[in-house]
Amino acid sequence: MITAIPETMSAVCLNDDGRLILCTKPVPHPGKGEVLVRMTAAPVNPSDLARIRQVKEAGGQASFIPGIEGCGTVVERGPGLLPRLWLGRRVACSAVLASSGTWAEYLVTSAANCIPLQAGISDDQGAMMLVNPMTAVAFLDIARSGRHKAIINTASASALGRMIERLAAIAKLPLINVVRNEKQKAILINTGSGNVLDSSVESFTHELQELARRLDATLILDAVGGNLTRQLLQAVPYGSSVLVYGNLSGEQPEVDHRSLVAENKKINGFYLANWLNEGGLLRKLRCIYRVRKLVKNELPIKVQRRFPLDQAQQAVDTYLGNMTTGKVLLVPPSS
Amino acid sequence: MITAIPETMSAVCLNDDGRLILCTKPVPHPGKGEVLVRMTAAPVNPSDLARIRQVKEAGGQASFIPGIEGCGTVVERGPGLLPRLWLGRRVACSAVLASSGTWAEYLVTSAANCIPLQAGISDDQGAMMLVNPMTAVAFLDIARSGRHKAIINTASASALGRMIERLAAIAKLPLINVVRNEKQKAILINTGSGNVLDSSVESFTHELQELARRLDATLILDAVGGNLTRQLLQAVPYGSSVLVYGNLSGEQPEVDHRSLVAENKKINGFYLANWLNEGGLLRKLRCIYRVRKLVKNELPIKVQRRFPLDQAQQAVDTYLGNMTTGKVLLVPPSS
Repeated sequence: MITAIPETMSAVCLNDDGRLILCTKPVPHPGKGEVLVRMTAAPVNPSDLARIRQVKEAGGQASFIPGIEGCGTVVERGPGLLPRLWLGRRVACSAVLASSGTWAEYLVTSAANCIPLQAGISDDQGAMMLVNPMTAVAFLDIARSGRHKAIINTASASALGRMIERLAAIAKLPLINVVRNEKQKAILINTGSGNVLDSSVESFTHELQELARRLDATLILDAVGGNLTRQLLQAVPYGSSVLVYGNLSGEQPEVDHRSLVAENKKINGFYLANWLNEGGLLRKLRCIYRVRKLVKNELPIKVQRRFPLDQAQQAVDTYLGNMTTGKVLLVPPSS
Repeated sequence: MITAIPETMSAVCLNDDGRLILCTKPVPHPGKGEVLVRMTAAPVNPSDLARIRQVKEAGGQASFIPGIEGCGTVVERGPGLLPRLWLGRRVACSAVLASSGTWAEYLVTSAANCIPLQAGISDDQGAMMLVNPMTAVAFLDIARSGRHKAIINTASASALGRMIERLAAIAKLPLINVVRNEKQKAILINTGSGNVLDSSVESFTHELQELARRLDATLILDAVGGNLTRQLLQAVPYGSSVLVYGNLSGEQPEVDHRSLVAENKKINGFYLANWLNEGGLLRKLRCIYRVRKLVKNELPIKVQRRFPLDQAQQAVDTYLGNMTTGKVLLVPPSS
C-alpha cells in the first residue's frame, strides 16, 4: 500500500569528525527514468566502507548519503517506461547518485538499477541481492570467458566468498579458498569446503603453489592486497590473472617484476559498476537473470544483526569487528 | 667463405665470483632444424644483464653462455629446409639455449631464430637487429591492436626509446617520452623530440597527468619500475594499461589499489620471446618482415664502443656506466 510521501526524511550522513550520524534531509524526487523507493532494509558492504573512506578523503561530505544497495517499494516515478512498470512494486535497488544512498528512508535511483522481487524473496534477502550475488556471477562469467580451469579466491570466509564457492560448485569449477587465520579455516572445513589454505602459516606459499599448479588455477580473486597479492602472483602458473577487488589488509597490493615480465602474469582491478557498464545492456540483463534465479534457489545470505538508521556508526563498527558471521542490516524507522 | 670448424672455441662464461671471464668450450653441433653460426658481433642488451642476474640467482652457471642476439655466418647445418636455405649466409640470430649464447665464437640455434641479412646491412646493425627493433615493432603492434590513441614510454633516452619514437612518428601515434634526469631531457630535446618529461622534478606527476589526459595516452611502457610505476598508473586515464618490460630502478614496481579497482587500470608484463610465441608463426613472420624493412631504412643504432670477447666484464661495466650514448658490442677474436 502506498502512503503519503513526507517533505523530509531521516538519512545517514557524515559529521565533521567523519562519524556516521542521523540527519534530516528533504525527500528527493525522481527525474526522467528514475523512481523514488521507500527503503525497508539496506546492508553494510565492504564497498560501502571503501566509498565512505573515499568521500572522507576527497571531500563532498555535505551532500553524501551512504548505502550502495537495499530493498524497498517504489512510491513515486519520473517519466519513462521502466518507472511506470516498477511503480508500486517491491524492488531490490542500487544507488547511482552520491547524494542519494540506501541508508535513508527514501532513495532516488535509476529505474534500470531496480529489480522487482518475487513474493518468495524476503526484504532481508532482497536488500543484499545486488552487490554480492552480482559480483559472484560476474566472477564466474570472467572465469568462463577467460577459459580458466580453476579459481583461487581470498577472504573466502566472507558472505561473498561463500557465494563464489556455491557458484563454482554449480559450474563444476575447482576453487581454492584462501583465508587469513586458523579460525576461518576451521569454519570453512566444518561447513564442508575443500581446498582451504590459511595464509598465516609458513607453509602457505608452498601449499598454494602446489595446489594452484595441480589444478591449473589461473584466475585469482584478491580481496586482501598487501603482501598476499605478491604471494599469490608468485605461486600461480604462467600467464595467470590476478583480479584485485578489495583491500581488506588496508595495504597497497605488492607485485613483483619477475612474475609480470618473465611469467606473463597480469593484474587487473574489478569494480562491479565498471564491469557492468563496459559489458553493455546484454551483460547487465544476463547477470540480472542469473541473480534472480540464484537468489531464489541457491544463495541465501546470513544476517548477524539489524540496526535502526540512527545507529549506523554502531552497525559499521559491529560489521568491522566481525565480517564472517553474517551481514549487518540497517532498517529505517518507518519500516 | 666457409673455413674449417675447430674442435673448441672461446666463449664468455661466469666464474665462481659471478664475474664474466673467457673460457674454452667444445664447439656445439646443430641438431634437427638448427644451424651453427660463426659469430661476428653481439651487443650487450639490458635483457642480457637481467638474464645473467637470473642465472646467478637460480644456479646453472656451469653450462651457461650469455648473449641473446648477434650476427654471423651459418657454417654448418642440421637436417631441415630452413637450415639448408641459411647455410653459408650472413644472418642476424638470437639464442634459444642457455648453453649456447651469442657471446662466443660459435652459436647453435634454431634456424627459425635466424634472419638472412641483405648486403646493405652492416654486421654491427645486423647484430642488434632482433631484440630492440622487434620489441619496438611489438609495442607498436600492441598499441594498434589495443586501439590506443597515444603512448607513454619510460627510459626514453635508451636505444630502444629512440626506436619507439621513430616508429610512433611513422605510425603518427603521439608519444610522451619520460626520462629520469635533466641531462637526458636536454639530449632528447636537442635531437628534436617533443613531449619530454623529466621524472626527477617535482612537477612531473602533474605535467604527466595533464599531457596523458589531453592526448588520451592509455598504453604505458614501463622499463623502470619502483615508485615510477605507481606515478604512471595514477596519472593516466581510466582503463589504461601499463606494460612492464624492464626494471632499471632495480626496485619492484609499485601499484595502488584505487587505480586498479576504481579506475580499471591494468598491469601486464612484456617479454619479447613470450609475446612472439603466444602470437604464433603469423605474428613472428609479420614482425620479421617489418623489422627487415625498418632496419634498412629507419632504425640505425649508434655503437659507442666495441670490446673483444675476453673483455666481456669490462664491456658490461662500460654499458652500465652509460646506457644512453650508444650500444656496446662484443667481437670474437677470429672476426
